[in-house]
Amino acid sequence: MKTLYWKNNHLFLLDQTKLPDEVIYTKCKTYREVIHAIKTLMVRGAPAIGVAAAFAMALAELAGEDLDKVAGEIKAARPTAVNLFWAVDRILKAKSRGISALDEAFLMFEEDIQTNQAIGKYGAQVIDEGDTVLTHCNAGALACVDYGTALGVIRAAVDEGKNLHVVCDETRPVCQGARLSVFEMQQEGVPVKLIVDSAAGRLMQEGKINKVVIGADRVARGGVANKIGSLMVALAAKRFNVPFYVAAPKSTFDEEISIYDVEIEERDPDEVLYFGKCRVAPEGTEVENPAFDIVPSDLITGIITENGILDPI
Amino acid sequence: MKTLYWKNNHLFLLDQTKLPDEVIYTKCKTYREVIHAIKTLMVRGAPAIGVAAAFAMALAELAGEDLDKVAGEIKAARPTAVNLFWAVDRILKAKSRGISALDEAFLMFEEDIQTNQAIGKYGAQVIDEGDTVLTHCNAGALACVDYGTALGVIRAAVDEGKNLHVVCDETRPVCQGARLSVFEMQQEGVPVKLIVDSAAGRLMQEGKINKVVIGADRVARGGVANKIGSLMVALAAKRFNVPFYVAAPKSTFDEEISIYDVEIEERDPDEVLYFGKCRVAPEGTEVENPAFDIVPSDLITGIITENGILDPI
Repeated sequence: MKTLYWKNNHLFLLDQTKLPDEVIYTKCKTYREVIHAIKTLMVRGAPAIGVAAAFAMALAELAGEDLDKVAGEIKAARPTAVNLFWAVDRILKAKSRGISALDEAFLMFEEDIQTNQAIGKYGAQVIDEGDTVLTHCNAGALACVDYGTALGVIRAAVDEGKNLHVVCDETRPVCQGARLSVFEMQQEGVPVKLIVDSAAGRLMQEGKINKVVIGADRVARGGVANKIGSLMVALAAKRFNVPFYVAAPKSTFDEEISIYDVEIEERDPDEVLYFGKCRVAPEGTEVENPAFDIVPSDLITGIITENGILDPI
Repeated sequence: MKTLYWKNNHLFLLDQTKLPDEVIYTKCKTYREVIHAIKTLMVRGAPAIGVAAAFAMALAELAGEDLDKVAGEIKAARPTAVNLFWAVDRILKAKSRGISALDEAFLMFEEDIQTNQAIGKYGAQVIDEGDTVLTHCNAGALACVDYGTALGVIRAAVDEGKNLHVVCDETRPVCQGARLSVFEMQQEGVPVKLIVDSAAGRLMQEGKINKVVIGADRVARGGVANKIGSLMVALAAKRFNVPFYVAAPKSTFDEEISIYDVEIEERDPDEVLYFGKCRVAPEGTEVENPAFDIVPSDLITGIITENGILDPI
């Protein structure tokens, strides 16, 4: 199941806000529609956002827009995932070399799949037969064009014939774990269990988790930015000696800056106040809703990339 | 707002599953109705469960039941909170001294309020002017007869004139933080913010939390059992040097056993699969839903009791 595809000069995005209940592809005819889809999490996950942004540039190119201006608008869609900036800049660079935005976007689309398969191949080496692997949020096929980073590691290990169990944190507030990762693993036929985010420590304390593998929205000096909750999972993994891996393409790396200088997106309070259409807290409740955590390097066993398993930077 | 009261030989319980939307007291005419209320979380929180169990014994006494048999049934309602066993045994002991179950239950009702006020008085000493205090779940008035343990500490500090902010973890799966603790603090006029459970680490990393105060379902050798999620909060507090306090009456202490021998209740998967009436995960999703965590003693700064602040045992 691909998260996006290009057809008849339009970009089709799998609307992830509707999963797992409905599998619907939304047609984007303009780059502004892609920006809206990125902001509303119809497309999410750092690698998928990058490729969607590249195709948004292609839509703008076909419409004869000023690509430098469009680039700025796209980059402002979400502040934390560096792949968004990386993708837009790569399109601009390709244009300056006489390559069309659309051709470069197609190349990035294909590369994303190959990159994830390479991440899977390296990552599978650290997954042992019989392991129960915990993951947080969704760094799966649904976070990429296809295959996935963290869940790509699991796919690759399963393809090698290893029998695995997967435990998914539900990943409040938007529940990408419950809605997307559980769904992906079920589709794949991998035994999967769902827990609330705060139960991860208990399962590790009981020795029920052998490895943690998560994705990343940015890898920078001093650590990794990833979905809120990643830090507490990492602290529990450290305490109970569970290897903690981050799976991320090199396009997620930003070696120029400190991880503590990354802007952490603060999202809509309604994500916390509601659960789907069900309201949780009393009227007038104030909320703090940071979308991402910073996981310091000392908590990370290794970063699984398409070039091999690297130390955190 | 009291969680329970006795009137015309019946026990009236505030139905906490309906909060914060509706404030409804349910009448229990038999001890079996109280057991049902404990199992379904209409009444919850270790101290409140204890007093409700005492009144359940009084209902059984009035109905001329065999109290030894009834005691066994009540104790089986929930396995983790020791106050339940403590309360039932105390009633049996009172009976053997010729004191009626009802008189002893009234005494326990009054004692619970006094105990919490004493916990508040001692606990307020470790809360500083201007502190932001994080709490998990609801160890408030709604977990007791009135006043609360962890939230009692906050009430007492506010009564002393300290200006505090409170941050409540929503506390999946049943959201006692979002529904009950936020509600209590709003009623009290204390500024309060709601976060998802997994954001507690981020707020501590940013220096936004000065103290953590939680309740306990059992204090035993080696640590404390409390609501799922308490362990990960404690690990984050340790990492970021935030003092981590447990507020609990001495009736919660069980010095005879190791905390690792406490039975951890596994609850209904639907608590995780649903949020109110909203389903989260795909059909057929397997769930692990432990209701409690074990927080090891080395992560606990102190245990605030009615006798003062004690070291963990």
